[in-house]
Amino acid sequence: MKLCRFNKDRLGLVDGDTVRDVTSALEALPVCTYPLPRYDLLIAHLDEVCKRVRELAPTAPSLSLDSVMLLSPVANPGKVIGAPVNYKKHLEEARADPEINFQAQVQEIQRIGLFLKATSSVIGQSETVRISHAERRNDHEAELAVIIGKPGRNIPKENAMSHVAAYCIGLDMTVRGPEERSLRKSVDTFTVLGPWLVTADDIPDPGNLDFSLKVNGDVRQFANTRDLVLSIPELIEYASRFYTLHPGDVILTGTPKGVGPVVPNDTILTEFAGIGSMAVAVGLQN
Amino acid sequence: MKLCRFNKDRLGLVDGDTVRDVTSALEALPVCTYPLPRYDLLIAHLDEVCKRVRELAPTAPSLSLDSVMLLSPVANPGKVIGAPVNYKKHLEEARADPEINFQAQVQEIQRIGLFLKATSSVIGQSETVRISHAERRNDHEAELAVIIGKPGRNIPKENAMSHVAAYCIGLDMTVRGPEERSLRKSVDTFTVLGPWLVTADDIPDPGNLDFSLKVNGDVRQFANTRDLVLSIPELIEYASRFYTLHPGDVILTGTPKGVGPVVPNDTILTEFAGIGSMAVAVGLQN
Repeated sequence: MKLCRFNKDRLGLVDGDTVRDVTSALEALPVCTYPLPRYDLLIAHLDEVCKRVRELAPTAPSLSLDSVMLLSPVANPGKVIGAPVNYKKHLEEARADPEINFQAQVQEIQRIGLFLKATSSVIGQSETVRISHAERRNDHEAELAVIIGKPGRNIPKENAMSHVAAYCIGLDMTVRGPEERSLRKSVDTFTVLGPWLVTADDIPDPGNLDFSLKVNGDVRQFANTRDLVLSIPELIEYASRFYTLHPGDVILTGTPKGVGPVVPNDTILTEFAGIGSMAVAVGLQN
Repeated sequence: MKLCRFNKDRLGLVDGDTVRDVTSALEALPVCTYPLPRYDLLIAHLDEVCKRVRELAPTAPSLSLDSVMLLSPVANPGKVIGAPVNYKKHLEEARADPEINFQAQVQEIQRIGLFLKATSSVIGQSETVRISHAERRNDHEAELAVIIGKPGRNIPKENAMSHVAAYCIGLDMTVRGPEERSLRKSVDTFTVLGPWLVTADDIPDPGNLDFSLKVNGDVRQFANTRDLVLSIPELIEYASRFYTLHPGDVILTGTPKGVGPVVPNDTILTEFAGIGSMAVAVGLQN
């Protein structure tokens, strides 16, 4: 099932070129008072919401996909976790290019582990990536985003896939420079999630998905998730040795070779087998 | 005003050795539905809550401070931001000690910028710091924590203090190792905030506070916030060039020299002029 958030926080079922407005399925979610839960309500209750969506869909109003504004399918991620240099050919590229590595040795993921992106950087496809450090190189990084569905700590990789609720496309936008990744990758609008989420049952083999990224029509990145250094179950095992993964936590699984700069007025098109395509505009900070 | 969260999400006014239960002041906070706000409700509405607390306090039930369980005064921080090596003598110490620097060059904060800690790592004084990587060195780092009160991006330092709502003590617990800070410092329970918040009007000069940290009674860290490399206004200016600061975002301003290991059954006591003292137990991961 493909679920999108659209317009002013409406819920949609994506079916080809149309969106069925199934917003009333959100009535399954609890009303909250202070202190708020530290996880995403939609993802924590996804099974129940999907059940209601199936009941509502046949009679739900239908809109053209082109006509709606798509927001991040995860509204309240508790953590956005990044996997640095998790494709071998990107590691080679990063080590060779001083504009990427900034005179620091690029280490392997098994040594440097994972990083965090600020949740305040998350937007959806119809919002615009806004460059704030225009004097620097600002790079696109296309990735498979894994959305965690249930809480867990010290999850063995053999059991890890049962913790995955859904997938979407992730753009891990990055300002190049000497600062820590968790700062340079946390600029407002620098995490694009979308265009919708696809529930895990619809992607039986997430470890074998072709994907590509084009800037203004030119292919920049083309890869398959089978070339991940740490696989999805291994990333979940690794991350959960340090912290509890909660519903709505997002793991950006890493980007393949071909990262490169974007500038205002560019359009980034990412296409993912099993998910769809996501076109994002680039602009300057307001 | 000193406000604490205690027991099962109750709100207290701290007055010497007593806590006045002013939980009904939380009725000022809105009820929320999906999608939830990405900021802390209490901090966003702190002025209104404080007004109600003043009205309630004279007739509020009084408890002994010793008898209550203290939680993090910020329940829903959107970001926990850390300032690496922000005291010059700690920079010298980190560069000299291979058990701290792990063969990586320790850079100055002006070059490496800020890092993030997972919000899932936040606890209060009465919860226990739980070590998960017992085979490694796990260090205490005592810090002044600045709690942001209103949203802002590109905040000039001249105006930065108007964005501060409150202060508390922060323990930035750290597993030593080669991984990125945003992973090693994000272990569950590795961010202790407390013992309560002190509203900004009660700390006229946060840039001149003595503080100390003792482990089992032995002084390990002793410093004054006047020795910060980047001051509080400079940290706010720097951070907000990358991302919007939201109400409840916490900036851990950095730790002075004297960082060192703790092990299960240790007690960490941090004392801060203008705030109070916070005693935290250390244990093993459950």
